[in-house]
Amino acid sequence: MMDIELLPGQPRDEATLTDAFGWADIPGALGGVAQAGIKSTGRDDLIVLLARGATAAVTTRSTAAAAPCIWSRARVPSHTQAVVINAGNANASTGLRGMEDTRHMASEVARHIDCTVDEVLVCSTGVIGVPLPMDRVTQGIAEACRSWGASSDRLARAILTTDLVPKTAAAIGAGARIAGFAKGSGMIHPDMATMLAFLVTNAQIEANALQGLLEDITACTFNAVTVDGDMSTNDTVIMQSTGEGPSIVAGTPEWDAFKHAVTAVCRDLSRAIARDGEGAEHLITVEIAGLETDEAAREAARAVCRSPLVKTAIAGRDANWGRIVGALGAVFVPGLDCMDLDVAGIPVLRNGTPLAFDEESASNALAADEVVIRIRLPGSGWGEAWGCDFTEGYIRINADYRS
Amino acid sequence: MMDIELLPGQPRDEATLTDAFGWADIPGALGGVAQAGIKSTGRDDLIVLLARGATAAVTTRSTAAAAPCIWSRARVPSHTQAVVINAGNANASTGLRGMEDTRHMASEVARHIDCTVDEVLVCSTGVIGVPLPMDRVTQGIAEACRSWGASSDRLARAILTTDLVPKTAAAIGAGARIAGFAKGSGMIHPDMATMLAFLVTNAQIEANALQGLLEDITACTFNAVTVDGDMSTNDTVIMQSTGEGPSIVAGTPEWDAFKHAVTAVCRDLSRAIARDGEGAEHLITVEIAGLETDEAAREAARAVCRSPLVKTAIAGRDANWGRIVGALGAVFVPGLDCMDLDVAGIPVLRNGTPLAFDEESASNALAADEVVIRIRLPGSGWGEAWGCDFTEGYIRINADYRS
Repeated sequence: MMDIELLPGQPRDEATLTDAFGWADIPGALGGVAQAGIKSTGRDDLIVLLARGATAAVTTRSTAAAAPCIWSRARVPSHTQAVVINAGNANASTGLRGMEDTRHMASEVARHIDCTVDEVLVCSTGVIGVPLPMDRVTQGIAEACRSWGASSDRLARAILTTDLVPKTAAAIGAGARIAGFAKGSGMIHPDMATMLAFLVTNAQIEANALQGLLEDITACTFNAVTVDGDMSTNDTVIMQSTGEGPSIVAGTPEWDAFKHAVTAVCRDLSRAIARDGEGAEHLITVEIAGLETDEAAREAARAVCRSPLVKTAIAGRDANWGRIVGALGAVFVPGLDCMDLDVAGIPVLRNGTPLAFDEESASNALAADEVVIRIRLPGSGWGEAWGCDFTEGYIRINADYRS
Repeated sequence: MMDIELLPGQPRDEATLTDAFGWADIPGALGGVAQAGIKSTGRDDLIVLLARGATAAVTTRSTAAAAPCIWSRARVPSHTQAVVINAGNANASTGLRGMEDTRHMASEVARHIDCTVDEVLVCSTGVIGVPLPMDRVTQGIAEACRSWGASSDRLARAILTTDLVPKTAAAIGAGARIAGFAKGSGMIHPDMATMLAFLVTNAQIEANALQGLLEDITACTFNAVTVDGDMSTNDTVIMQSTGEGPSIVAGTPEWDAFKHAVTAVCRDLSRAIARDGEGAEHLITVEIAGLETDEAAREAARAVCRSPLVKTAIAGRDANWGRIVGALGAVFVPGLDCMDLDVAGIPVLRNGTPLAFDEESASNALAADEVVIRIRLPGSGWGEAWGCDFTEGYIRINADYRS
């Protein structure tokens, strides 16, 4: 037996992540929650997030983008005041009425918090093609705007749909606090997905700089969670700031530290989204060292994550590595004939040559909660992506989604 | 209730399809079958196809293409003599040894039928990353070359893997006979798929013309079956001719009639592949009238077919049409705000506006064996694609594929 070193993973500093604070602990950031009755389950289903500094947002690129996405992306980067989010109804494929309902949501919030309608962003998630029950939404907004101070956990719970656990994260960078929460999806996008994530910081930061930072970070965190190349009609990431904390200016060492901390929060939320995928039993992490650029490496890693055959093999604890090679070949990744590959810590390919391995040990290694697939190819790029396995539970959830 | 006309499907002449003959009835075409023992099931698993006229082939574009694909595509268009196909082992990710084994398969056939090694094409399908058992393969080739005259049905059965039923089709065009058989896949490509299809005709046809014809037809038939954007390491379509029948020359009315008949055979095999997808309970057909080009329409139709959310909705007999809109948006299809949409004969959208429909009737309509999704968008393109629904059976098959 050859003595084979495992491929090294990217060193990663997660030290900035903290459990010490959440949304309610960022001075100037407020969250309100309501049980509006949009969901039939009688749970919280509407929230309003307040922060009066710079705001950035990244939304779906889908040509079927929902009304709230069209509304929100036209209003950033800027100094908005609030974001209103409802669960239970996506307000997508709802035509002109959908746009009017979105505007009405913004104007109701504006009336309660005393700002202009254009200073309020809107997000919706849930079923497509059904008009919003605006009487309930309006009442919910009034209720949320009377109940400030909700925790990250409560805010995160209010926007869950088919995902099971609230997803929150926080970090400190350059003296600024960052708190975030998210909902998703995971396996693949439930009802065309809707991955929503909200971040807030007390940093004082210029709006255009915040927008650029959020776009860069989204590309290698939230957009690396997937899954099947699909995107939602409603996907949105919004970052607000209160402007009450330290000033963060692009091009300084503080900027780098701040970006590092925001990245840590977004990466943690991304992994939590993948882990909580519909029916998922394993988090799948794919790391690729090689290819020409980081972007190429990330795209190749995503291709492995979204392959149904890789996903079902991992559900079955089967180290069927040929499917990983196949998934890379199908997106035209070069250099596969000299690839190194580890699956769950087990070397299976070196320089394109299959290695003998014990199937039973491999099956045991694949029982772990997180399965890491490490790939080395020619080139100096580096990228990672996250997904989850594909189980019978997924089919059950999605075949019966509306019933 | 409005009186709404259903969207018209493309008129389609299937009159050329026939059950009157098969592979063994094409003068000059011979098929031999062997039980080589590559599959552990003790069934036929190796075939040799003989036809001494022009040959064309289309293979996978995967950068992980298997040795037999690399071998075969370098040898067409031309006048080859034979094709040898084994099931049970893909000879993919097998390095230099894989190339040597492929050459050895070709040279064994050449020895038995008295031609050069370059006049023999090779296909393999099955598990990836395992060297071929060459002693068994060699014996199987000898056996197949002693047993000419196998029917289309027997040939088709010998190359099945996880699919359940043999897929054969035949037609006459411009006086020439065309017979074909195929294996697949369907839902998504089992073990990175391997869709194999073989066609033979008695027509006398020039090799380059045959290659062009096969590429054109593959684009709108076999390549419209899918599913998830993936492709196999081993996908191959080969068309042989015997040259003993009528002469077919490009640019003549006979050419059009011949092309029409070959298209009918390939379309029928494509639909059979989709229908026999792993775990499938429904054939899904998506037809799009609109968009700028036929290719754009076909690509958009494929995007709907491969959406796991559309596939699971149909498995659950749920007319959740928002997922169809979402799938189109995710691949940036324009004009969705004025789309017409019928699902299983039920009008659900007109000019982008949702229509009321009875959920129970819709659920009954979705119980049909074939579910047709018809879409009208601005533009004069037209395209269709086929897939199948996504059931718990699929997960079971693929989680346990190697065990």
